[in-house]
Amino acid sequence: MAETGRRVDENLTADPGRERSLATFRELGEFGFIDKIARHGLADTSRVVCGIGDDCAVFEGKNDRVTLVTTDLMVEEVHFKIATTKAEHLGCKLLSVNLSDIAAMGGEPREAVVSLAVPGDIQVAFIEGIYSGLHTRAKEFDVNVVGGDTTASPGPLVMNLTLTGEMEKRQVCYRSGASPGDLLYVSGTLGDSLAGLKISRGEFSTCPEEDRRFLQGRHHDPTPRVALGQALAATGGVSAMMDLSDGLSSDLGHICGCSGVSAAVRSASIPVSDELVGLCEGDRKDAALMGLSGGEDYELLFTVAPEIRETVEALGDADGLPKVTWIGQIEEGSGEMFLESETGERSTPRPGRSHHFS
Amino acid sequence: MAETGRRVDENLTADPGRERSLATFRELGEFGFIDKIARHGLADTSRVVCGIGDDCAVFEGKNDRVTLVTTDLMVEEVHFKIATTKAEHLGCKLLSVNLSDIAAMGGEPREAVVSLAVPGDIQVAFIEGIYSGLHTRAKEFDVNVVGGDTTASPGPLVMNLTLTGEMEKRQVCYRSGASPGDLLYVSGTLGDSLAGLKISRGEFSTCPEEDRRFLQGRHHDPTPRVALGQALAATGGVSAMMDLSDGLSSDLGHICGCSGVSAAVRSASIPVSDELVGLCEGDRKDAALMGLSGGEDYELLFTVAPEIRETVEALGDADGLPKVTWIGQIEEGSGEMFLESETGERSTPRPGRSHHFS
Repeated sequence: MAETGRRVDENLTADPGRERSLATFRELGEFGFIDKIARHGLADTSRVVCGIGDDCAVFEGKNDRVTLVTTDLMVEEVHFKIATTKAEHLGCKLLSVNLSDIAAMGGEPREAVVSLAVPGDIQVAFIEGIYSGLHTRAKEFDVNVVGGDTTASPGPLVMNLTLTGEMEKRQVCYRSGASPGDLLYVSGTLGDSLAGLKISRGEFSTCPEEDRRFLQGRHHDPTPRVALGQALAATGGVSAMMDLSDGLSSDLGHICGCSGVSAAVRSASIPVSDELVGLCEGDRKDAALMGLSGGEDYELLFTVAPEIRETVEALGDADGLPKVTWIGQIEEGSGEMFLESETGERSTPRPGRSHHFS
Repeated sequence: MAETGRRVDENLTADPGRERSLATFRELGEFGFIDKIARHGLADTSRVVCGIGDDCAVFEGKNDRVTLVTTDLMVEEVHFKIATTKAEHLGCKLLSVNLSDIAAMGGEPREAVVSLAVPGDIQVAFIEGIYSGLHTRAKEFDVNVVGGDTTASPGPLVMNLTLTGEMEKRQVCYRSGASPGDLLYVSGTLGDSLAGLKISRGEFSTCPEEDRRFLQGRHHDPTPRVALGQALAATGGVSAMMDLSDGLSSDLGHICGCSGVSAAVRSASIPVSDELVGLCEGDRKDAALMGLSGGEDYELLFTVAPEIRETVEALGDADGLPKVTWIGQIEEGSGEMFLESETGERSTPRPGRSHHFS
């Protein structure tokens, strides 16, 4: 993690939050930390269908519907750099990552509130650009931005958005329902966002302009799969679903862990774009490796019973919805994930990690 | 505003977010900025009862009820200092400032999501302390903390909480309903939080230990007036209500501006605690001045029709609810606020400002 802007005075031990002898947040890591805080109980469980641990929290709504809530934080120098990002894209992406969480449950997005901690030296036009991008995306997805909080920041630009959603209670797609025998699918193509980030960082300088634009667009302005999520939920046959933010090799572990199963992914089936294959000089295997470990694709990863295979694949070919690809299957096990080569050999992939600027 | 942790390179003009020639966030200020962003339209107005500009956003709920949403950001070195704040108090306060917004509409708090951007060198025990305080307060007010987002921060500790609430649609107390002739009330005592902050900064070193504890407690651990807000809304006679976060002299301007009226406050009626008067060496006028300009009291400021004066004052004497004090009246006008001395002379108070660490 970058330490930009942090002044650590090793001699300052009087500060109770900064004692050096005990475990720090960096040592524990984000997931260890979430485990720690998830242990706190709820005040009134009667209202809550699902708390911490899925893409959204789910609680009782009107009639047979539920309300979904998700929140996402984006921090300058961790999730983005101002010098290499358009303000409009930042605003779009802040909403898109939350829309992707609503999509991952199969829900309809509703209302958003947005908080900004703004450094004093940022020009107002840049912040207006963020709001402009945010509102453009909000209109596309019928989201009302109903309020927020704006404050000064002595450090990075920090943005937080909380988004609500709604859906039929019986259709909610959790991470925890995958069963042995279920088929594993993914939408769209994987690895494009990682490639786009690398291009923005100055790698792949010989990449053709058109491919470069496509791949960078996939990184800076991902399309949340809201309509596909709703269509999948409406089939009633999706046993588990989540969105891909940290990368397939990391995120699939959550479905396996929550469902108490294992999964095998055929590496040759990982869907990759022609642009990514081009970037990998025609090497489809290299492209698939980027697809396996790259984060921030915001595609949907889901499991279905074999009986509805045709229904699901027809959906993915319908107008305006991204293609869905069968990439593997769910097996008995306890959270393991295997990669299967074309000759049937199995290996355990290294978990991908978020490719934020950290 | 403090510039801690910000490295501004005056020669760096290639950074599109940091051009020095155009208006910066610091130059425009928070309120100018909110005016700018509030102009963006909503995607679907049919769902929204009230958007940006009140303590909470209000949208249609089940039956004749509405859902309330509020969000608040707390930034290290702007809203708090780690060295002088207990972790548990921080967590409590993060929820309390949001509870206070729900109280200001008269609502019942429901579900919360919390986001943290955490510097790598903060010890885990400190962050656990924040959650511990947060969950203690959540249990007191029957709030479910249903999820959140945790990420690294290259700068300050940043915390954001979004809280939902619920209430009868016809009982919602907006800022915009005050009419000439209405009486102006405030709950509790004012100025204690500012005094507590000054004590924490090393001022008033001769203040007796017991008074010091009370005043610092009012700053670090304010009590949101949720039950009072609900009781007031239930009378059906509150014409306008808000919570006091920036101080009476600033916040009253919002009620006047939103309602299209003016207000006169009798300075001798501003309620102050014995502890604050003691701190001001017995000078009640000095204490009232701190009450007028000091922020972060999180008391309720509201206007009522004269007919329900007795009902409202009886409420404020009921078990467990803070006292309410009649401090002035609403008049015809266009947003002015006057201070009335005991001899009837009128002056215009300087607007208070948030006494954050900025």
